[in-house]
Amino acid sequence: MPLIVQKYGGTSVGNIERIKNVARKIKKAVDEGNQVVVVSSAMTGETDRLIGLTRELSNRPNPREQDMVVATGEQVAIGLVAIALQELGVPAISLTGWQVPIITDNVHTKARIKKIDTHRIRKHLDEGKVVIVAGFQGVSEDGDITTLGRGGSDTSAVALAAALKADVCEIYTDVPGVFTADPRIVENARKIPVISYEEMMEMASLGSKVMQIRSVEFGAKYGVKIHVRSSFNDEEGTWIMEENEEMEKVVVRGISHELKESRITVVRVPDKPGVAAKLFKALGDKNIVVDMIVQNVSHKGFTDISFTVNKTDADYAEEIAREVAKEVGAEDVERNDKIAKISVVGLGMKTHSGVAGKMFEVLYKEGINIYAISTSEIKISCLIDEKYAELAVRALHEAFIENMEGDIQYE
Amino acid sequence: MPLIVQKYGGTSVGNIERIKNVARKIKKAVDEGNQVVVVSSAMTGETDRLIGLTRELSNRPNPREQDMVVATGEQVAIGLVAIALQELGVPAISLTGWQVPIITDNVHTKARIKKIDTHRIRKHLDEGKVVIVAGFQGVSEDGDITTLGRGGSDTSAVALAAALKADVCEIYTDVPGVFTADPRIVENARKIPVISYEEMMEMASLGSKVMQIRSVEFGAKYGVKIHVRSSFNDEEGTWIMEENEEMEKVVVRGISHELKESRITVVRVPDKPGVAAKLFKALGDKNIVVDMIVQNVSHKGFTDISFTVNKTDADYAEEIAREVAKEVGAEDVERNDKIAKISVVGLGMKTHSGVAGKMFEVLYKEGINIYAISTSEIKISCLIDEKYAELAVRALHEAFIENMEGDIQYE
Repeated sequence: MPLIVQKYGGTSVGNIERIKNVARKIKKAVDEGNQVVVVSSAMTGETDRLIGLTRELSNRPNPREQDMVVATGEQVAIGLVAIALQELGVPAISLTGWQVPIITDNVHTKARIKKIDTHRIRKHLDEGKVVIVAGFQGVSEDGDITTLGRGGSDTSAVALAAALKADVCEIYTDVPGVFTADPRIVENARKIPVISYEEMMEMASLGSKVMQIRSVEFGAKYGVKIHVRSSFNDEEGTWIMEENEEMEKVVVRGISHELKESRITVVRVPDKPGVAAKLFKALGDKNIVVDMIVQNVSHKGFTDISFTVNKTDADYAEEIAREVAKEVGAEDVERNDKIAKISVVGLGMKTHSGVAGKMFEVLYKEGINIYAISTSEIKISCLIDEKYAELAVRALHEAFIENMEGDIQYE
Repeated sequence: MPLIVQKYGGTSVGNIERIKNVARKIKKAVDEGNQVVVVSSAMTGETDRLIGLTRELSNRPNPREQDMVVATGEQVAIGLVAIALQELGVPAISLTGWQVPIITDNVHTKARIKKIDTHRIRKHLDEGKVVIVAGFQGVSEDGDITTLGRGGSDTSAVALAAALKADVCEIYTDVPGVFTADPRIVENARKIPVISYEEMMEMASLGSKVMQIRSVEFGAKYGVKIHVRSSFNDEEGTWIMEENEEMEKVVVRGISHELKESRITVVRVPDKPGVAAKLFKALGDKNIVVDMIVQNVSHKGFTDISFTVNKTDADYAEEIAREVAKEVGAEDVERNDKIAKISVVGLGMKTHSGVAGKMFEVLYKEGINIYAISTSEIKISCLIDEKYAELAVRALHEAFIENMEGDIQYE
């Protein structure tokens, strides 16, 4: 009997009518002869409301207590989905993170899954029940409630699919799939039918908001087939899977942009061994994810170190950077919140040169200055002024995707 | 070091300002040198909102799933109280029912506490923390979240006080204490400074809404001193404790009324052994608490059996009664939702006669018909028409309390 893990996001369970709709979708999968495990997010707006309550009491609420409060959002949703299914005559049971249990580390508000015990889920599946698991949450080995950070329900779903060896992990969302660029910005953006884990990881990390990157990492690591699709219709969405021969041959799969980062620069750092290590270890200890790092060539024994972090971490990161700057005798710390990171992504870059050159040329022709560049085997990212973000995405989409259909050579 | 358990009801934690106020009250107790365990209800209105969501999906939601949803109310509150305390510099940690754990049976929505493991609470107290426990909830031996039924936070608090051998269990509420009658009805109602467990149990079971009866039972069983008081000021409230010599000598401690019951009558039941047993066993199996039971003398081999239940259970109880009626060949089942139960309560009745006669006389003089009578050693209850409830309470308060100050003889 095939086993499907279905994940529904906050908008899919945003009100009672939508929860009933979700229940009908689940019933359909059951009627088609599948075992189904469902992962649900909190009803849309609920997580923000709960965080808002904690913020009314404290500017920096204790993370353990914040998790205690915020984890209730998913708990409400799974109970309601279970009731909606039972009303349709489908046996169902809801499980919180600790009931599964989904064991995580104890880094509250950003915990990582360490282990999933599937015995209880298997037992309920064998009883013929749909099992509805709270996304986004787990339990530490000390028995404290943890949350996985924003978008963590995707990770819960893919991790469960991996642990259960599910045939597919369906991610239901409010968009039809993954696009070559944000369709709100680029009119000609197209839905991508199949994308490799590698490309999707880059797209996710670069600001395509369809899926949380950690969930794609999980999928890649355990070979979970992921199907991202709309919860409002039955159309095929985007399949995320191992790179294979049938994938459309393109050099650039998509153009991605990210406005959520801040750049922090530690100015005039004495160029001594261990300074960068000290800075990034301090940030890492607080579980702050650093994205781009740029260090210029040393000039008269001093250098500048720039890095980007998520805006929500920027206050904290700046604070840490100031502490380290003081400690190592750097001159100052500067911060810029008005930046955008624009990226082109594609497996084809591994074997086709000229993408970087073409990208810089396109931006140059639009008069867009590049602050920093970062590359991997399958993507190139440029940091630019926030105000040019949309212009850059449109120009790059036109150059790399619209004008390149059927053509995979740049030079 | 004295150990206090403080329980705060939904109105006491009804909004962010009130939660801050609660935190200040807790801090005061800590500053005075006490170890403090706090039990919190859900923010006022939250439980109803959550039940409302489940009812939008189903007329009779699965009780396990309803508990899953409803238990989140207290979980939010305890996290917020912990954050508010931490903001005041008081170390604090919140614990859900399953984290304590408070073990209950598995009768969802009406579970009973079986055992409380105090190790984790003790550990946190020894670390110098205030421990904030979610009221109203527990966990079954199967690891499912359970709730104790309405008002269950009182029971959580008293049970925790018993398990921890606390010096006192303070019940903070939105009224100043227990009154001789409902002050909204009787202008001259007075706050009772000290009341015995026995009297309080009768008062609670008879509709004085200050405390849940099960919590007083717990208090009596384990000798927990309970202090019911206002969360809005520092005045002494009502102490509930073992009967002792210092208690004010009165025959009648208070007048109580209850509008929340329905009367169900099984009409023309064949008077055979085992019929009543079958009916009340069926109700008991569904955890429906039956209050008054009246069976008239058999007439030509048939009898009527009447009983009262909480209005929230009336639909279900009527359904069960109809099933049993059919099974045993009774003629019909009748139901009356417009009834009131009026009671006089006092330890002094044990040694003073004449209370019943005087009660019936007072009601008779007001032209109020009595449908049924039920008595215990320390209370007499009469079932009357709902519309006469306030009149009856006022007349009885005047006769037994206002006109009896310093006088404990009726004849």
